[in-house]
Amino acid sequence: MRTHGRPIISPIGGGITAPDGIRASGLACGIKTNGRLDLAVLAASHPASAAGIFTTNQAKAAPVLVSQEHLAWSEGIAQIIVTNSGCANACTGPQGMADAREMAVLASNRLGCAPSHALVASTGVIGVNLPMDALRMGIPRAVEALSPDGQDDAAHAIMTTDPFPKSCAVEVSTTRGRFRVGGMAKGSGMIEPRMATMLGYLTTDADVEPAMLRRALEEASRYTFNAITVDGEASTNDCVLALASGDSGVRIDEEHYAGLFEAFRAVALELSLGIVRGGEGATKLVSITVSGAGSQDEAWTAARVIANSPLVKTAIHGGDPNWGRLVAAAGRAGVTFSLDQAMVRIGPLVLFSDGEPHDQLAPQAAEYLQGKEIEIEVNVGTGGGGRATMYTCDLSAEYVRINAEYRT
Amino acid sequence: MRTHGRPIISPIGGGITAPDGIRASGLACGIKTNGRLDLAVLAASHPASAAGIFTTNQAKAAPVLVSQEHLAWSEGIAQIIVTNSGCANACTGPQGMADAREMAVLASNRLGCAPSHALVASTGVIGVNLPMDALRMGIPRAVEALSPDGQDDAAHAIMTTDPFPKSCAVEVSTTRGRFRVGGMAKGSGMIEPRMATMLGYLTTDADVEPAMLRRALEEASRYTFNAITVDGEASTNDCVLALASGDSGVRIDEEHYAGLFEAFRAVALELSLGIVRGGEGATKLVSITVSGAGSQDEAWTAARVIANSPLVKTAIHGGDPNWGRLVAAAGRAGVTFSLDQAMVRIGPLVLFSDGEPHDQLAPQAAEYLQGKEIEIEVNVGTGGGGRATMYTCDLSAEYVRINAEYRT
Repeated sequence: MRTHGRPIISPIGGGITAPDGIRASGLACGIKTNGRLDLAVLAASHPASAAGIFTTNQAKAAPVLVSQEHLAWSEGIAQIIVTNSGCANACTGPQGMADAREMAVLASNRLGCAPSHALVASTGVIGVNLPMDALRMGIPRAVEALSPDGQDDAAHAIMTTDPFPKSCAVEVSTTRGRFRVGGMAKGSGMIEPRMATMLGYLTTDADVEPAMLRRALEEASRYTFNAITVDGEASTNDCVLALASGDSGVRIDEEHYAGLFEAFRAVALELSLGIVRGGEGATKLVSITVSGAGSQDEAWTAARVIANSPLVKTAIHGGDPNWGRLVAAAGRAGVTFSLDQAMVRIGPLVLFSDGEPHDQLAPQAAEYLQGKEIEIEVNVGTGGGGRATMYTCDLSAEYVRINAEYRT
Repeated sequence: MRTHGRPIISPIGGGITAPDGIRASGLACGIKTNGRLDLAVLAASHPASAAGIFTTNQAKAAPVLVSQEHLAWSEGIAQIIVTNSGCANACTGPQGMADAREMAVLASNRLGCAPSHALVASTGVIGVNLPMDALRMGIPRAVEALSPDGQDDAAHAIMTTDPFPKSCAVEVSTTRGRFRVGGMAKGSGMIEPRMATMLGYLTTDADVEPAMLRRALEEASRYTFNAITVDGEASTNDCVLALASGDSGVRIDEEHYAGLFEAFRAVALELSLGIVRGGEGATKLVSITVSGAGSQDEAWTAARVIANSPLVKTAIHGGDPNWGRLVAAAGRAGVTFSLDQAMVRIGPLVLFSDGEPHDQLAPQAAEYLQGKEIEIEVNVGTGGGGRATMYTCDLSAEYVRINAEYRT
């Protein structure tokens, strides 16, 4: 199954615990009042290479600050990750910082590792303190429940009101042997307002140094977790964490980096698309590719502006092949744009090119837009090679309903 | 009525034709198939100082390019402005440019001025060519119909499906005598998709050089036309034009500049707030003030991000005093933000300060949000003096309905 030394990546079951040496658990500790799972723990068999990327929001939640601190102190080593849903522990002042630190201590004490080897994450309501009594009871129980089969409970326990859990794994065959990558994530398909956090977790049994793990996480996230949008809102709590047990014995160095990167990208893409499909009020998954840009950065900028345009998103929701809105969004994106050389493609249909509309194709494009997965390309006409793809969803009245509902 | 030489600004009737030497007209020439007014002409009694500010969108419509060209050639002199609604003449290639130039020629020929002294503007559907036969009949008729009482017809003729016309005038008393400023505008309260253009017009009978007229227009627009948002979408056709007949005989120089600027700002603010009130699906007018920013630019940036945040706009629509979303939007705005010193005020109620929530005030804040005019302040906590106010509206399911409706 090996061709010219290139790694072969195959989907497998097992989710976040598919890699050797990774266990997980999820239970209900009482943060959510409806009895649903609200506490997840993920652990490696020993202190392992770890990496994280965190929200760029300057109103960072306490767990984000604590996990950043611990990764810095440990120089990229961690053994356990504890996550609660139902409360974001954001905008909670010094008490919030103390609570996030105590979460790490509760987990590390029970597992038997250093507190700085514990990472924490929270998602849920902003501005409310954690119910620490529930966590003091729950975290030791969750650590005891760690199991190589805990992936489903964990993937459920990090959800707030996501419509479905997001879990995925692959196996990578290399000239040095096989290793696995698992992942789980939560998005924002929430009914209850004040909630909107993206959390992602990747595990592997590849043997990889912290610095290279971090590089793989960052590079893979660029095309996946950082290339999706539901409503353009970066949360106070967003984070993606990676943990590498090394238990496969497959050593990752420069020569084999591509295999780890491609596997991370494959798992992260699957999870990311799940987040968009489950976005608040979403009925369609839309990929927006910008081509012909003056640079990669300009392609990303334009793709991001188009993917967040409410007029584009409502037109797609309504099945309207409104290429004029795509042109207008690209034109205001702040990147070089040449109307005379621009091109708009909806699915297989080119509706605008060289400054001229092709409106006779509009009925076919409208039919294409009835589908659930939509591909759009906007060439911004500079003749450059900059190209980027963002994944977004349509904007529906349901999004407004979900987020306008009053919460006491 | 004069106090220490400061100009007194008083509201008057008469709209865009309130200043001496300004006439207007509006009629139905057949661009709109429903028989509504679709052609407006505005003229000065002689070649007059003129200025314009235009969309920053790089997909500029043909009338925008032609008006910019004419103002450059004439060095800020114009006598007539012709505007059609129902067709944006955007993304229409070389034919669109030829059509926009012919509109200017048709108007200037009938009035008897140079073609470069005619400015043009269009609003409506993107990607469709103008029905020039209708304009060849209509423009001469509209020029003949010019009248000092034409303000209402003109204000109606520039509407697409705005819920109401926007028209306003003031009189300014200075130590040199009195002059007037009039204005009209259209916004985006459209039922038919592919339409979204902001057009603004200011007239005055002050005697002012083109350069100073341009300065007053730009400075006044900074706090008015450029400080509003409905959905963050800059159109291909946006423009604001000013025309100064000089017929009052009141000379505006540096000493009297403040009077012209304040009057422009007052008229432009009234028109701008009308555009927001009439925004697509809008039920509330919301002012977002950012204070405590490191600079004016940072204050504007943060205010703009908050004013366009769909989570903030849906929360306001739902009457939810969700200060967490305001903090999160400010935190992701890309400006310096200090959570520990930040403050959020909704109406008179401070819901978050010094890193701590004051959730006991939430019920009162929810009651305040039942009103039609909402004031919000976010202090970003840097201790700096940067302060800016953006005007926005709530985001309703009606916005989605309007923009998702399929157009054949």
